[in-house]
Amino acid sequence: MHVSLLLLAKPVLHGYFRSSCSWRVRIAFALKGIEYDPVPVNLIQDGGQQLSEQYKKLNPMQQVPSVEIDGITVSQSLAVIQYVDETRPGPRLLPADPKGRAQVRMISDLIASGIQPLQNLHVLQKIGAEKAQWAQHFIERGFQALEPILKQTAGKYCVGDEISMADICLVPQVYNAERFKVDVGQYPTIKRLNRTLLEMEAFKVTHPSCQPDTPADLRS
Amino acid sequence: MHVSLLLLAKPVLHGYFRSSCSWRVRIAFALKGIEYDPVPVNLIQDGGQQLSEQYKKLNPMQQVPSVEIDGITVSQSLAVIQYVDETRPGPRLLPADPKGRAQVRMISDLIASGIQPLQNLHVLQKIGAEKAQWAQHFIERGFQALEPILKQTAGKYCVGDEISMADICLVPQVYNAERFKVDVGQYPTIKRLNRTLLEMEAFKVTHPSCQPDTPADLRS
Repeated sequence: MHVSLLLLAKPVLHGYFRSSCSWRVRIAFALKGIEYDPVPVNLIQDGGQQLSEQYKKLNPMQQVPSVEIDGITVSQSLAVIQYVDETRPGPRLLPADPKGRAQVRMISDLIASGIQPLQNLHVLQKIGAEKAQWAQHFIERGFQALEPILKQTAGKYCVGDEISMADICLVPQVYNAERFKVDVGQYPTIKRLNRTLLEMEAFKVTHPSCQPDTPADLRS
Repeated sequence: MHVSLLLLAKPVLHGYFRSSCSWRVRIAFALKGIEYDPVPVNLIQDGGQQLSEQYKKLNPMQQVPSVEIDGITVSQSLAVIQYVDETRPGPRLLPADPKGRAQVRMISDLIASGIQPLQNLHVLQKIGAEKAQWAQHFIERGFQALEPILKQTAGKYCVGDEISMADICLVPQVYNAERFKVDVGQYPTIKRLNRTLLEMEAFKVTHPSCQPDTPADLRS
């Protein structure tokens, strides 16, 4: 009884409208049709709500997102995405074929380990005055690698013609690139994929510009 | 015929003795009993061999490791590890249970996205003079989060009593922590797990101190 109640409960997503890793999870939930309860964690208000003792108990890394689901708490967006892919119906977020899965994970990790961590809030706060150049450098370096890889793997989406976790990682990273004034036009495959994906409902409804915690002046 | 020849060929691991991400792949190969051809990529010689035009074709991100396997090239160590787990016999590197898999991936990603990228060679070269404090800061911050998580998930190993990708990520990160003079004694669970794991053959034979490209003065 206890277990089935947990399984019936909606997942709780602790996130922030503009966090690219939170957006990844929102897209995965939308693609799978998973309803969830959003709990905003404002990364800049009150000195950063992710730094509170209460939030630290939920996620000792003091980052977003954290997801309470099926009686466990999972932080790290790719772990959450693969968990829901393995436990929820709906379109698969990783291909069936192991080589395709390897390519999806390679692209996802190139973004999630090779780009995003170097331009996240905590790092930029430590960098200080030169943070814009720092972020640009690491995003451009990552996109210079991503472009030739995607040129080889992409069909309609990042890997062939099926949407996957790689697409879920790509779009929020392009959003960050634009925030940091990276010229995405230099990367035609990235640009084309991003445009295609942004036309999809699951990317539209989860966009940082229209979340419950999006400030009025950033809404569109 | 072409395909079966590829499947019979040994994987080629382009790596560096001291790269923690290369070590992860070596451990996975050793646990699975996968023979491979090592190709050393010296990250500091010749201004960094990973920056050559030839290597860039193999891995546009210009990092190690890169693995040629079954006719594809996979960079990003966790993508490689999960690919061999899905295609090779031997002990599984992720548990069968989805919740266990989520925990293994959460811990692996905390290290692979939350710690390692912030203390890798390219980043530290950009940081310059303060690189030792920078690396210490990010490793300590990560370990402060990892310790309470592992306290909850660990049995004999990082997640319960079966070895997994999380253990494969932990040991090389502790090795890096020690290089940067982090006091690992502050983290009793991390310390205990690391000690247990280092006694295993798969961790011993893959250690940076005894690889084909380990310089004579660093051998033990």
